[in-house]
Amino acid sequence: MAKDKKTYKSALQEQDGIAPPESLSTNSANSIKAKRRKQPTVDELVSGILTGNITDLSRAITLIESTNTQHTQKAHDIITACLPHTKASVRIGITGVPGVGKSTFIEAFGGYLTSQGKKVAVLAVDPSSSLSKGSILGDKTRMEDLVKDKNAFIRPSPSGDSLGGVARKTRETIILCEAAGFDTIIIETVGVGQSETAVHSMVDFFLLLKLAGAGDELQGIKRGIIEMADAIVINKADGDNLKAAKSARLEFNRALHLYPEKESGWSPKVSLCSALKQEGISDVWALIMEYLTLTRSNQYFDQNRNNQNTFWLLQTIEEQLKTNFYNTPIIKESIKEQIALVEAGKITPFAAAEYLLSLS
Amino acid sequence: MAKDKKTYKSALQEQDGIAPPESLSTNSANSIKAKRRKQPTVDELVSGILTGNITDLSRAITLIESTNTQHTQKAHDIITACLPHTKASVRIGITGVPGVGKSTFIEAFGGYLTSQGKKVAVLAVDPSSSLSKGSILGDKTRMEDLVKDKNAFIRPSPSGDSLGGVARKTRETIILCEAAGFDTIIIETVGVGQSETAVHSMVDFFLLLKLAGAGDELQGIKRGIIEMADAIVINKADGDNLKAAKSARLEFNRALHLYPEKESGWSPKVSLCSALKQEGISDVWALIMEYLTLTRSNQYFDQNRNNQNTFWLLQTIEEQLKTNFYNTPIIKESIKEQIALVEAGKITPFAAAEYLLSLS
Repeated sequence: MAKDKKTYKSALQEQDGIAPPESLSTNSANSIKAKRRKQPTVDELVSGILTGNITDLSRAITLIESTNTQHTQKAHDIITACLPHTKASVRIGITGVPGVGKSTFIEAFGGYLTSQGKKVAVLAVDPSSSLSKGSILGDKTRMEDLVKDKNAFIRPSPSGDSLGGVARKTRETIILCEAAGFDTIIIETVGVGQSETAVHSMVDFFLLLKLAGAGDELQGIKRGIIEMADAIVINKADGDNLKAAKSARLEFNRALHLYPEKESGWSPKVSLCSALKQEGISDVWALIMEYLTLTRSNQYFDQNRNNQNTFWLLQTIEEQLKTNFYNTPIIKESIKEQIALVEAGKITPFAAAEYLLSLS
Repeated sequence: MAKDKKTYKSALQEQDGIAPPESLSTNSANSIKAKRRKQPTVDELVSGILTGNITDLSRAITLIESTNTQHTQKAHDIITACLPHTKASVRIGITGVPGVGKSTFIEAFGGYLTSQGKKVAVLAVDPSSSLSKGSILGDKTRMEDLVKDKNAFIRPSPSGDSLGGVARKTRETIILCEAAGFDTIIIETVGVGQSETAVHSMVDFFLLLKLAGAGDELQGIKRGIIEMADAIVINKADGDNLKAAKSARLEFNRALHLYPEKESGWSPKVSLCSALKQEGISDVWALIMEYLTLTRSNQYFDQNRNNQNTFWLLQTIEEQLKTNFYNTPIIKESIKEQIALVEAGKITPFAAAEYLLSLS
């Protein structure tokens, strides 16, 4: 179990036993330091995780996040050993543009859940960030209570140069968190780019956080976010904002009715809250409970998880096929040449593609 | 040159010298008939195309559309020989939901262009259709004048089981039409599915045809169509519809201003027309001319064509990599097994993907 009053920083320091991937090749001092400490075995980490030991959980996640092949193999073994022991959980995706108050909301929502006896893990998918550059969830000032809550576990977005890589690491982390006994997994993402689609395909419930009168409704429709949302929660619905929030609720309700019925059979709901004043938080949970009752009774819940697994299986294959192809030395060498020929009107893009494919 | 007063049907019959791909394996009578006629050589077809011979152009396009390997090789040689002779052209994509009057618009627009001395080719991308089942542009009743116009060439959507395949055939057909002296290429697509994105990435100018008060504005925004449009033309703006059309123009203008500036530097325009009454047609062309002046002076025109070529190069590679992988016998055999293991919670989708990749 996590130590009481532990800060986020000290939690990260505890993971020192496994050096972060960046330092393996570049920082020999760290590497020596890493060797001095005893590396826990796969079995040790797995039994630690299964008893809910947060230090072991953190260490195993660091292995998932590593780019070192030995670490990858170890991570793989840990995940396989943990898979049969994952507990039933609810995975909730939360998105919203910067400034909408995601951290404050998660602080309030996570705190409410632990007060209800839940064990909450907060993860993130933000391909634009890296641990060193600071990521979402990096700013813990607005999550200071949750970070100290022994029934909460917060982990910033893994770093990575592709969304696929970042998403994979987060998905594998979910499994370890579930094996460690966390029954509610919150996955935060930023309201820009493709990361929402990635998070949507790893959660059971997708929550869009909005502000009243922010005027970005069109953006949400354009990028398909509103279409993915199971709930739109209008935050900062307090004081002078309340009237605007109520009229935004009407507007969003109208917009939601223009979409076809969801496969889940669920009609997305619009809800108001003030994360700062801790108002409307229990309503959000009630709404999620209602969703769970419906989708468990109509089998959508399990069916959706299966579909998500198949999606990630195919997605991983297709990404890897591309990576393998474009990293072949002969392709790397020839592709620019072929593009130049195409641009000069000497061959068609299709003929160039066929030529390149014939080389690999 | 095309014969005067030639009908669309007779144009298709003239291509008899090359049997359509479907009949190669299934219909021996047709196959024998095909053998009786002399097959034109690549050189004969190329010189025919370069002098603007429509029969040779049609025959070469049939080779492009064939699934027979010998035909594919022949088509490839023809395209390569034609590439250096493609004339400067304008490629215009036209989309709109069924019922918006695409055929009537193209009939009026194409007729206007030939009256201005242009040579117009009308092609289509509709992956849902096949020659046998009837495709868009299959219904020629509303294009009866254009079909007889000796400066117009109309070709229905190629058939195919993937959008990629259909799009590729249309793109290759564009090259042959340009080599045959057509300076204005119109590519029609249906306002459903992903085909608009495919057409958008093969044209210089993308035109969205709309009706006033059709209430599908949200659909257009959702699917990113409005974002792609260089012009929105509101059709059937006549009689009782005129008032509604004018207010729709206002609305669309407002919606367009919410989008960020286009890379081309062009601000999309909204225009009214009545294809049936042949009103507003010259305005659409004036608008396209204005676009061309801008994008040729700021180099976007050429840059965009280069980007499109690179896009198709990469797209073709990636589609082929997937096809090759999933069609490998061992993968076909193992993938269902792996999906079952993933669904049973025995392995992660990532581990299954890695296993499958290791087999190929």
